[in-house]
Amino acid sequence: MNRREELVGHLRKLQAAAPEIEASAVVSLDGLIIASNLPDAVEPDRVSAMSAALLALSMRISGELNRGLLEQVFIRGLDGDILLMAVGEDAVLTVISKREAKLGMVQYYMKRAARDIAKVLF
Amino acid sequence: MNRREELVGHLRKLQAAAPEIEASAVVSLDGLIIASNLPDAVEPDRVSAMSAALLALSMRISGELNRGLLEQVFIRGLDGDILLMAVGEDAVLTVISKREAKLGMVQYYMKRAARDIAKVLF
Repeated sequence: MNRREELVGHLRKLQAAAPEIEASAVVSLDGLIIASNLPDAVEPDRVSAMSAALLALSMRISGELNRGLLEQVFIRGLDGDILLMAVGEDAVLTVISKREAKLGMVQYYMKRAARDIAKVLF
Repeated sequence: MNRREELVGHLRKLQAAAPEIEASAVVSLDGLIIASNLPDAVEPDRVSAMSAALLALSMRISGELNRGLLEQVFIRGLDGDILLMAVGEDAVLTVISKREAKLGMVQYYMKRAARDIAKVLF
């Protein structure tokens, strides 16, 4: 099993644990997809570009407003959530979930997945 | 009591209910401070500029990834959180809190404050 397959395995495990998650991806800080588990309707390039842009701005804001090193970002829309969680210092785990997802549960499983992904990446 | 004083009253009430909140402001979508309750160390212009930038990007991302109309944005750093909540369609309530803040509590009081603020604004 190569590294990418191993990462996709962790994303699948995450989505099995929290089925409200519709899509997940590991993205590099410069906006490249490292691994993804996305339904056909979701374009990988769109997810990676959005993740990188949000991450860059959030890091800047967290610094400017003295909140320290960025850990996670969360966007809630009427129809669902987008969550980003740092994986080490060079990558981010992005998750797109349905609105009915329980935030605490999703965060818990994402933290676990981020740890597993970091072990594969670094 | 004028409108701005009334808004500052709602911000003070919010910070009294959730004392982990260090600073709060009502910002227009184009990044102007409508009312604020910030400690001296926090520059109003910095808060409003960051809020407007984050809000604009988050609205775009929520749209691009089909999450619907934006409701809230949350940034967690090692040393604390930044939360944005929509106030109607033309303003945002921005809150800067300590790390030990309970997210659910802060969200609950912010929702209440956002409702009160909307009544003053619209």
